[in-house]
Amino acid sequence: MATQDSTGSSLGPEFTQQVIDSMGPNTPPRLREIMSSFIRHMHGFARDVQLTSDEWLLGVNMINWAGQMSNEKRNEGQLMCDVIGLESLVDDITYTVATKSTSGLTASAILGPFYREDHPIRENGTTISFDMPKDAQVAYMHGVVTDAKTGKPLANAEIDIWQASTNGKAGGSLRTIRWREPTKTDWRIGLYEQQDPNQQDLNLRGKFITDSEGRYSLYCLRPTPYPIPEDGPAGKMLRMMDRHFYRPAHIHLLVRCKGYKQLITQIFDKDCKYLSNDTVFAVKDELTVEFKPRKDDPQASFDLEYNISLGGA
Amino acid sequence: MATQDSTGSSLGPEFTQQVIDSMGPNTPPRLREIMSSFIRHMHGFARDVQLTSDEWLLGVNMINWAGQMSNEKRNEGQLMCDVIGLESLVDDITYTVATKSTSGLTASAILGPFYREDHPIRENGTTISFDMPKDAQVAYMHGVVTDAKTGKPLANAEIDIWQASTNGKAGGSLRTIRWREPTKTDWRIGLYEQQDPNQQDLNLRGKFITDSEGRYSLYCLRPTPYPIPEDGPAGKMLRMMDRHFYRPAHIHLLVRCKGYKQLITQIFDKDCKYLSNDTVFAVKDELTVEFKPRKDDPQASFDLEYNISLGGA
Repeated sequence: MATQDSTGSSLGPEFTQQVIDSMGPNTPPRLREIMSSFIRHMHGFARDVQLTSDEWLLGVNMINWAGQMSNEKRNEGQLMCDVIGLESLVDDITYTVATKSTSGLTASAILGPFYREDHPIRENGTTISFDMPKDAQVAYMHGVVTDAKTGKPLANAEIDIWQASTNGKAGGSLRTIRWREPTKTDWRIGLYEQQDPNQQDLNLRGKFITDSEGRYSLYCLRPTPYPIPEDGPAGKMLRMMDRHFYRPAHIHLLVRCKGYKQLITQIFDKDCKYLSNDTVFAVKDELTVEFKPRKDDPQASFDLEYNISLGGA
Repeated sequence: MATQDSTGSSLGPEFTQQVIDSMGPNTPPRLREIMSSFIRHMHGFARDVQLTSDEWLLGVNMINWAGQMSNEKRNEGQLMCDVIGLESLVDDITYTVATKSTSGLTASAILGPFYREDHPIRENGTTISFDMPKDAQVAYMHGVVTDAKTGKPLANAEIDIWQASTNGKAGGSLRTIRWREPTKTDWRIGLYEQQDPNQQDLNLRGKFITDSEGRYSLYCLRPTPYPIPEDGPAGKMLRMMDRHFYRPAHIHLLVRCKGYKQLITQIFDKDCKYLSNDTVFAVKDELTVEFKPRKDDPQASFDLEYNISLGGA
C-alpha cells in the first residue's frame, strides 16, 4: 500500500524497495543479489520510458511465444537475448573477466542456440561434412592445443566443433521454415543440420581428441554468412529494429581438457561480410582467422591453422 | 569488435552503445526509445551482478518454460512479471499517471492473468456463482457508476466482474495441479473456473449494465485469499525468493462506458490477510472495501456497496 507522490504516481522508488524486501530470510545470498538488481533494473526501465500496459503486454506475448517455439532443436529465449548482445556480455563476464590474470588465453565467444550435447567423437584427419553442398569450399583445419602459461602441448584435449552448412538455398527447407530471402550478395547462406531436413543427423558436427603432441585435424566447410531464424520473436525484434539477420561466417568450438577451464568460442573468416555488425555481437578481433589456399590436397582447397591456448581451471 | 579495458572485460559501455546503434533508420521512434532503455538496463543488470553464463541460462530456461506453460487459460509470462511488481508498475504508469489531472477517480489495479474476454452479460440483481462452495459466504454487491468530474450517474456502463471460488481445497483439483498445500490459517483458498474442472465454464464471471440511474447489482462470493499457481516458473521464483504465494481476498473489475477511460481494477476485503504483502503488489489503500452484515436477505449474509467514478477518455 502506498501514497501518491508529486507526479501522480503512487509507485515510486519505495515501491521497488517493497518488492525487493518481500524476499524472505531464506533467500540464498547470490539469488537475493541477482533478483534485487533485476527488479531495480526492470522497474527503472518501465519508469524511464513510462512503459504502458499495452506495450508491456506486447513484451509478455513475445516471451510466451519464445517459449512456445523452443524445443530440443531450438532455443528462442536464448536467441532473443543474443540479438540484444546479452549472451555475449555474460560470456565476457564469465570467461574474460574470470580469466583476466592469465595472458595468452584463447578468447571466448557465445555458445549460441544450436549446440548439441551428443556430437560423436571422430578420427583426426576425417571430415565432418557428410552432405556436401554442390558449391562447397572445403578447408583442412588443424592446430595444437597448449597450456596458456607454459606453452606445453595438451594431449587428450577434446575439440568439439559445429558449423552451419553453406548452401541453404539449394534445398526446399528455406521456404518451409520461412527463412529470410537472401539478398543477391548473400545468396550462399547456411542452415544447421537440425534446421534442415536435407542434412543427415549430426552433419557438420564432431569431437576430435588431440594426440600426444596436442594436435587435432579435420576437414570442414569454409563457412558462409548465416541468417538467424526469423520466424520467431527474435526475428520479429530484428525486423522491428530495422536490423539485418546475419552472422559473419563462423565455426563453433567447445574445448575441454582435464585440469583446464572449458573454452567456448567461435572463429570468424577475416574476409567475410558482417564482421563489424554481427547480429548477435560475438565477434572479437582475436577470433578472426585466415583461410589460406591449400595445394596438393584433393580433399580441400583451403587450409586453416588454428591453435588454442587453455587456462588452468 | 572491441578492445580490452582495464578490468579485463572487452565489453564495456561502448559495447552497449554498439548494440543500441545497430538499430536501423526505420526503427519507429517509440520502439527505439523502449529498446534503447531495455538494452541499457539488461546490460547494466548483467554488469552490476557480474552475471555468469550459467546463471543467465537458468533465466533463459525459465522464460522458455513460461511460454511452454502458457495457453488460452493461463499466462505464465504475465505472472512472472506480476510477482516482481512489474504489472502493477506499468498499470500505475498507464492509468494513475495518465489521469493525474482528474481528482476523485476510482484507482486502477492490474488485470491479472485470469481475465477472459467472453464473459456473458447478466441481469442486475442476479448471481455469478453457479457452483456454490459448501461454506460459501455470499455478498450482495451494488453501487453507482458516476462521472468523476460532475458526479453525474452513468447509464449503460458495463461492469465486468470476475473472481476465484473460495474453496479450492474441497475438490481434487488442488493435488492435480500441484497447488501449494494451504496452511492451517488459510485453508479456504480458491481457484478460478479455468483452473478447476469442478467449476462450470464461466462460473463467477459476468458483465452487468448500469440502469438509467447508473446502478448495478449482483450476488457474488465474499472472496478469500488466493494462492497464485506455483507449478510454473513464477512459483519457482517465489519459492527461490522465500516468499509466500498468496493474494489478499479480491474481486476483479473492468469498467467500460462510452466516452470514458476504461478502468481495470480490483477491490480488496479490508479484513483479510495479505493486504500488506500481496504477492503481486496490487493493493492500494483506496481499493479496500468493507463487507457489512446484510439482514433479511436469504440469498446473502454480506452487503458490499461499491461506487465507481470514471474519467473522460
